[in-house]
Amino acid sequence: MSASRILVVGSVALDSVRTPFGETVETLGGSASYFSLSAQFFAPVCLVAVVGDDFTDEHRESLRSPDIDLCGLEVSAGSTFRWSGEYGYDLNECRTLSTCLNVFESFKPKIPPSLRRSDYVFLANIDPVLQREVLEQIDRPKLVVCDTMNFWIRGRREELLKTIERVDILILNHAEARELAGEANVIVAARAILGMGPKTVVVKKGEHGAFLISSDLFFAAPAYPVDLIYDPTGAGDSFAGGFVGYLAMVGDHHPDRLRRAVVWGTVMASFAVERFSVGGLCRATHESIRERFSRLREISQFETD
Amino acid sequence: MSASRILVVGSVALDSVRTPFGETVETLGGSASYFSLSAQFFAPVCLVAVVGDDFTDEHRESLRSPDIDLCGLEVSAGSTFRWSGEYGYDLNECRTLSTCLNVFESFKPKIPPSLRRSDYVFLANIDPVLQREVLEQIDRPKLVVCDTMNFWIRGRREELLKTIERVDILILNHAEARELAGEANVIVAARAILGMGPKTVVVKKGEHGAFLISSDLFFAAPAYPVDLIYDPTGAGDSFAGGFVGYLAMVGDHHPDRLRRAVVWGTVMASFAVERFSVGGLCRATHESIRERFSRLREISQFETD
Repeated sequence: MSASRILVVGSVALDSVRTPFGETVETLGGSASYFSLSAQFFAPVCLVAVVGDDFTDEHRESLRSPDIDLCGLEVSAGSTFRWSGEYGYDLNECRTLSTCLNVFESFKPKIPPSLRRSDYVFLANIDPVLQREVLEQIDRPKLVVCDTMNFWIRGRREELLKTIERVDILILNHAEARELAGEANVIVAARAILGMGPKTVVVKKGEHGAFLISSDLFFAAPAYPVDLIYDPTGAGDSFAGGFVGYLAMVGDHHPDRLRRAVVWGTVMASFAVERFSVGGLCRATHESIRERFSRLREISQFETD
Repeated sequence: MSASRILVVGSVALDSVRTPFGETVETLGGSASYFSLSAQFFAPVCLVAVVGDDFTDEHRESLRSPDIDLCGLEVSAGSTFRWSGEYGYDLNECRTLSTCLNVFESFKPKIPPSLRRSDYVFLANIDPVLQREVLEQIDRPKLVVCDTMNFWIRGRREELLKTIERVDILILNHAEARELAGEANVIVAARAILGMGPKTVVVKKGEHGAFLISSDLFFAAPAYPVDLIYDPTGAGDSFAGGFVGYLAMVGDHHPDRLRRAVVWGTVMASFAVERFSVGGLCRATHESIRERFSRLREISQFETD
């Protein structure tokens, strides 16, 4: 099976994170980083993003993999995007301490000609206008998957709706789904979002797992049981990496594939949260990933009498 | 298959509930009511509780079923236990407006001699001292399942721990599990509770489903997707009814049975929340119950490639 290539456009950042279990200063973060390091276990990834001239070789080293193509990682004069945040014991709630967009502020994604025929596209969480600009540079992709966040839902709603209309699958968390649909019941919210254009909506619920809804499928998976969530940063993008990565690997998105894609996403998120920064993903192996997939089957399967 | 009888000891109450979708005044409620109306689909139930002399025939009628034995429903001079509460749009959060124990205040459960050899016992949410007094009246039950609530965890911790030590399965919700174990991670909390005596712990998470943990099993089920949660009151006891009811019906509690018991519990909770009071359970049929079980399989099953 020859996996299709995935194009991801998003952020590469330096994160400073404090959790009840420790803290980290200016380590590799950003949606495109987590996504790529997760998806590469399934399919080759081409990353399009921008960093500043302070992005060190060591940072770049963390992204190095035979299956991650960095030819689209632009280096601009200035500082790399920096984000800092803090989690309390309720690791579902994050408090952003600061966001300095830096070179990311004037980022205009330019898709290298060699990547314009990418079959699989992941539009990580960036301005929905930029997400559309990416789509306009791609030649008939097979599957477009998009992420977003509350910031765009609140501040760029109209632009976001125009983007969503054009994607196949929208991935978002449950608070975002509720906010986007203006509906408290998250399943009803997800169904309302289907009416906005995407054929499939995936809702991530952190420690409560995730579900996927489309016109003919509803599938729910529990989270992989992790004893110590060290740092939830990047869990969503790592989920997306497993999800899109698997679909690119198998080359279709029939309902049974979509089910499994949710589970592979769940597995990848579980690795991401076990260490600070991308440390959890870097420890994952094909074998440990497969083990967690099997474990999730054990956890969630039951027979009729 | 001849189902074993279940003894349930708990409350029968008159509830007044307000939700964003309407309100109800002094309709049948109480843990033993919800449990019995749920469990009776699986096995015969004997209910031990107390009501006041204001408990009308109409209220009693709501509990009438060939599979619910009310010989242990004591009538005392005075008023029936009354509870009133309110839910906002976040139906996971309930605000208790008033609790009037009335005849329930001096309730001393007396197990009729004919019920002392019950194989299956459900200790619904009452004072842990009373729960133990029930156990002392039962002759070697096959399975004892116990529920509790934050009120006892905070106010009667030592007594509760003595009760928990003696039960086979403890069912509680995730906030209660966290509080009982003093641990934020709910899976770690559940594991800590296993160390307090029960062989199995079931944690209910409302719209996020439920999980079960024992020394050799971890199983998680999503909630049944309900479009409109009318009134969450009684969901937990209805879950327990399906859970214990199924185990009594099949007569064993091997791991595969425990998995299915969680799913039957999930199904019964989904009916309970669709109407006020016991209206949702009363609309359930064997056929609709089986349909939801199958639907939950569809929702949660996946294969390996």
